[in-house]
Amino acid sequence: MSLTFTPLHVSPAGGRTARLETPHGIVDTPVFMPVGTRASVKGMPPFLLKEAGATFVLANTFHLALRPGSTRIRDLGGLHSFMAWPGPILTDSGGFQVFSLARLRKVDEDGIAFRSPVDGAQMFLSPERAVAIQEDLGVDIAMALDELVSGTAGEREVEAATARTTRWARRCRDAQRREGTALFGIVQGGMSRTLRRLSAEDLGELDLPGYAAGGFSVGEKKAVFRDMAAFTASHMPQGKPRYLMGVGTPLDLVEAVSWGYDMFDCVLPTRNARNGALFTSRGVIAIKNAAHTTDAEPLDPHCPCWACRNVSRAYLNHLFRNNDPTGLVLNTLHNLTYYLGLMGRIRDAVEQDALPSLRAELAEAYPDSAGA
Amino acid sequence: MSLTFTPLHVSPAGGRTARLETPHGIVDTPVFMPVGTRASVKGMPPFLLKEAGATFVLANTFHLALRPGSTRIRDLGGLHSFMAWPGPILTDSGGFQVFSLARLRKVDEDGIAFRSPVDGAQMFLSPERAVAIQEDLGVDIAMALDELVSGTAGEREVEAATARTTRWARRCRDAQRREGTALFGIVQGGMSRTLRRLSAEDLGELDLPGYAAGGFSVGEKKAVFRDMAAFTASHMPQGKPRYLMGVGTPLDLVEAVSWGYDMFDCVLPTRNARNGALFTSRGVIAIKNAAHTTDAEPLDPHCPCWACRNVSRAYLNHLFRNNDPTGLVLNTLHNLTYYLGLMGRIRDAVEQDALPSLRAELAEAYPDSAGA
Repeated sequence: MSLTFTPLHVSPAGGRTARLETPHGIVDTPVFMPVGTRASVKGMPPFLLKEAGATFVLANTFHLALRPGSTRIRDLGGLHSFMAWPGPILTDSGGFQVFSLARLRKVDEDGIAFRSPVDGAQMFLSPERAVAIQEDLGVDIAMALDELVSGTAGEREVEAATARTTRWARRCRDAQRREGTALFGIVQGGMSRTLRRLSAEDLGELDLPGYAAGGFSVGEKKAVFRDMAAFTASHMPQGKPRYLMGVGTPLDLVEAVSWGYDMFDCVLPTRNARNGALFTSRGVIAIKNAAHTTDAEPLDPHCPCWACRNVSRAYLNHLFRNNDPTGLVLNTLHNLTYYLGLMGRIRDAVEQDALPSLRAELAEAYPDSAGA
Repeated sequence: MSLTFTPLHVSPAGGRTARLETPHGIVDTPVFMPVGTRASVKGMPPFLLKEAGATFVLANTFHLALRPGSTRIRDLGGLHSFMAWPGPILTDSGGFQVFSLARLRKVDEDGIAFRSPVDGAQMFLSPERAVAIQEDLGVDIAMALDELVSGTAGEREVEAATARTTRWARRCRDAQRREGTALFGIVQGGMSRTLRRLSAEDLGELDLPGYAAGGFSVGEKKAVFRDMAAFTASHMPQGKPRYLMGVGTPLDLVEAVSWGYDMFDCVLPTRNARNGALFTSRGVIAIKNAAHTTDAEPLDPHCPCWACRNVSRAYLNHLFRNNDPTGLVLNTLHNLTYYLGLMGRIRDAVEQDALPSLRAELAEAYPDSAGA
């Protein structure tokens, strides 16, 4: 077993803390993984990721398999060495990207045939292939290949995909060859309680070292997301890490921890940074707004990042208006510092049985994301 | 006097070292100033500039006067505070950019009328205005406004512009109001020894705290550049810093130091970094070349920068092909580390009366720039 998950404190007020031991280091959970799609968190060399407080990063199998190719990364010493990130790395299975990015997709029991969005080449992703690619990359946690369906799919289609996802997870488990890569299954089931529960229970029988909840953030209403994500967590194995994929806003993170999730990834802090939407203790600031052209205040006086300690909003506005890559670097460093600092506050709140008051604070700072 | 220049060692083998004291710190010369056109060296927050070894940066008056405006920067505490660079800053006068970037330019004795390339607004740059803008910015060294002529201008046109440059330098001197900003004059004179000498001598009589040689890198042959730049230096005041504007390649820098220059700026390391042309101890490497897609070697095993210590050429190639801003950051950090490390080697070589052997080493590493 390449992964050890040791719960430390299960709070009666919601949430739990734990220690996750991986081949590339020990991580405190709940943990947020910045997204380094193409073996890089854009504009953030690893020394800046560490400065922001990152302990764990996520990369995308689909993008890396297309370019530069997983065997090339393997031959260069694996993904950790390639991108010079010494801590743990998790990769998705590529299933979501095939679903959202590939052309002429055709799914059957064997796997997913599609055309490369790079050069149109015919490609095939099977459960076995997804595992082989991720083992080539040498990551700490690999995700099983799942079948996604559109948000408008009918009950029977969702049911069939959910059942196939379980069968594929078994094939992924049986295809494993590498000791240091732990396989997580992905609970699907659309917005059906019955299917979510069935998926969680069937996958649980595979006794994988961890599980994720997938299929959220696909356009569902916030109230539905909350209900289904919380319900799903309650049926995922207790003693293993629970990973909520692709979520979310600061408020989402606090709430999801209260439902029992331990791991998160989301493009929000990094993508928003590039768009000039900056997270602060008082909510999101759109740095491009004209009001900031003469704004001598720091972005967030409570933030320890370099930008907040050294430059004004006016300077960040100036960089953004010039499309200066220094702005991208500083904005991303800031947003990740915010997110990773928030995770530290969440862990502290769980330890102190005080998650509800942190939730209330965030609901006030981020009223837009608090709505149903 | 806001500037003190103290020569330390004048080498019989060529070159001199000195200590330049500015209101924002003491700098060892010969010194290279990275170019931070719009109050930012692209992709390099000041903490990375320092890591690369920068002690002095250059910014462009013209760009900053257009956006965000010099009075706005003044009101925000000045350029050092605005861009959070604590060390000395030099700005050009804006004359070169008006010459190269502005539309509908019209020059007379008063100054230069032109239209803003940003919004077409009618603007006017005079010697007095150039000084006022730079004093608003609060820089350590301001450059006097000079009149540039095209490389194909006739002798009489060059002569008139050179004489006007001297008259404008006197007006700049008389327009000074701020104690902490030292004014440098710019020696012009095209490719005429007679005019270069006249310009250097006439400007020398103004007793400014330092002088630059301008009007190079405008398409002249390398042999002509060498001859004229060396000749010009020999007629610039001995006891004051000599700044060769906009130069140059690694070999240019060593040679220019041997002619007596102390200060340099050039976009080469930063612009080339963005284009993937990386300076190494064995010459320039084009990181996008297909040969590097599988190249597990470090960019330069002799370089102390983060990229050279931690990632392969294959990874830098991958970042470049993806147009990933992390690549821009790492490439720029590397090229500046190379340039600023080279300046340290140049200073050491001068101290040890060994500049010729360093020149020979660079001529071998950079044969393309050694030609006549």
